[in-house]
Amino acid sequence: MTKEKLIEEIKRKKSFLCVGLDPDLSRIPKHLLEYDDPIYEFNKVIIDATKDYAVAYKPNLAFYECLGTQGWETLKKTEAYIPDNCFKIADAKRGDIGNTSKYYAKAFFEDMNFDSVTIAPYMGADSVKPFFEYENKWVILLALTSNAGALDFQFSTDTKGEKLFEKVLRKSSEWGGEDRLMYVVGATRSEAIADVRSKVPNHFFLVPGVGAQGGTVAEVAKYGWNRDCGLLINSSRGIIYADDSENFGAAAAEKAKELQVQMAKILEEKEL
Amino acid sequence: MTKEKLIEEIKRKKSFLCVGLDPDLSRIPKHLLEYDDPIYEFNKVIIDATKDYAVAYKPNLAFYECLGTQGWETLKKTEAYIPDNCFKIADAKRGDIGNTSKYYAKAFFEDMNFDSVTIAPYMGADSVKPFFEYENKWVILLALTSNAGALDFQFSTDTKGEKLFEKVLRKSSEWGGEDRLMYVVGATRSEAIADVRSKVPNHFFLVPGVGAQGGTVAEVAKYGWNRDCGLLINSSRGIIYADDSENFGAAAAEKAKELQVQMAKILEEKEL
Repeated sequence: MTKEKLIEEIKRKKSFLCVGLDPDLSRIPKHLLEYDDPIYEFNKVIIDATKDYAVAYKPNLAFYECLGTQGWETLKKTEAYIPDNCFKIADAKRGDIGNTSKYYAKAFFEDMNFDSVTIAPYMGADSVKPFFEYENKWVILLALTSNAGALDFQFSTDTKGEKLFEKVLRKSSEWGGEDRLMYVVGATRSEAIADVRSKVPNHFFLVPGVGAQGGTVAEVAKYGWNRDCGLLINSSRGIIYADDSENFGAAAAEKAKELQVQMAKILEEKEL
Repeated sequence: MTKEKLIEEIKRKKSFLCVGLDPDLSRIPKHLLEYDDPIYEFNKVIIDATKDYAVAYKPNLAFYECLGTQGWETLKKTEAYIPDNCFKIADAKRGDIGNTSKYYAKAFFEDMNFDSVTIAPYMGADSVKPFFEYENKWVILLALTSNAGALDFQFSTDTKGEKLFEKVLRKSSEWGGEDRLMYVVGATRSEAIADVRSKVPNHFFLVPGVGAQGGTVAEVAKYGWNRDCGLLINSSRGIIYADDSENFGAAAAEKAKELQVQMAKILEEKEL
């Protein structure tokens, strides 16, 4: 998907919501366990219920890989079920030497049809660049994550006063432009979002951490907004586990709509 | 596998060789393409041919994921085929928030029976710790990688003079002991291996980069040795693609044996 198309969808749906598809067999409604592929049934209902409110979907690969071969098949079917006007994110956090990264790119961009994949920056340029070789496909690079462990290394300050996440922003923005590269910026560090925005004014951010992890849409928009909106705010558990009865689809729709309404208001205020 | 058992196998086989199982459909011998699962056939021959010379096997997940569901099935069968007296490494370079990492741990330690998984450190403690919850299972954390991109971030020096990879060593060695945690230390930076060894004297290193990438066994042993040997030296392409005819097994055995002979000599010199 191109950046222009993504912005068009944000304006059309009045939303910059990403729904995280992190399904856990022990948490999905019990009646689904009768199906051959309960996770796929769950995802289909969630996607149908939320697709008017979301512009992006983000399956987290751990939740599929832990189910083995069946899980990988479910992931593939889920990707295919997500409507093509939604931005599809493989939340895989891959990254390896160049020779290997090109096979990961093949997995997500050829064997499946994701628009983007999340990548860890530790191994540097050649672990990221192979993903840019696919037209209209994106890298979403970990910059500043929402978890407690983010403090272990991401804020390390070098002798020039540059923090590690700032160095990741600076160097990686030499590898890929704003039409191919986004950053993961956690909602739980709202002051830091402003810092990230000042370093990369034009790139989109994928923002996890709203809802169960504590961030809010208003805070994220306050610090992270740019002229294109520049934000995809993810909610996973708050939407997909809103209800564990047969009504879980309607409950998910309601939670997604709540977030979309907040986003529509912000888009209106910002005149986008 | 316990550390004691691993050291016992190193002494018994007089080897600290790890064979990297990175099979590519375009590079394996053509006659294998007639099989239902050519990659599995390839891996079986390679494992049979090298198991007297290798103490560890390391499938790189990218090479399986790019084949979709079939690739995941091949990975699972391959893991099951590797003899249990070999240390099994899922070279996955995972790492996510704690809530997610525990599902990756489940994938590699429950759905499959790997002894260890490679992990990227960028997201910090809570992305690593869930893997320690499995008895006798290991984390192999990226410290200093063998690729060019390693220079982008891993050598960043903080205000206290500590490089990022040194900080990764220091902090992570508080999370897991030498009986549960190894480090990836690339063979292409031999001087730096000595630096890593001085920081973590007792941990095992998984060392890629020997062979196709340019490092040598002697150099790695010179700088990385410890009282337990402390090294698993990986070779992938140099062994598995030694020949592309029907004789590829014998050619792989020969290449593995060449490395094992070098290792036996070092073990003898070191009186281990």
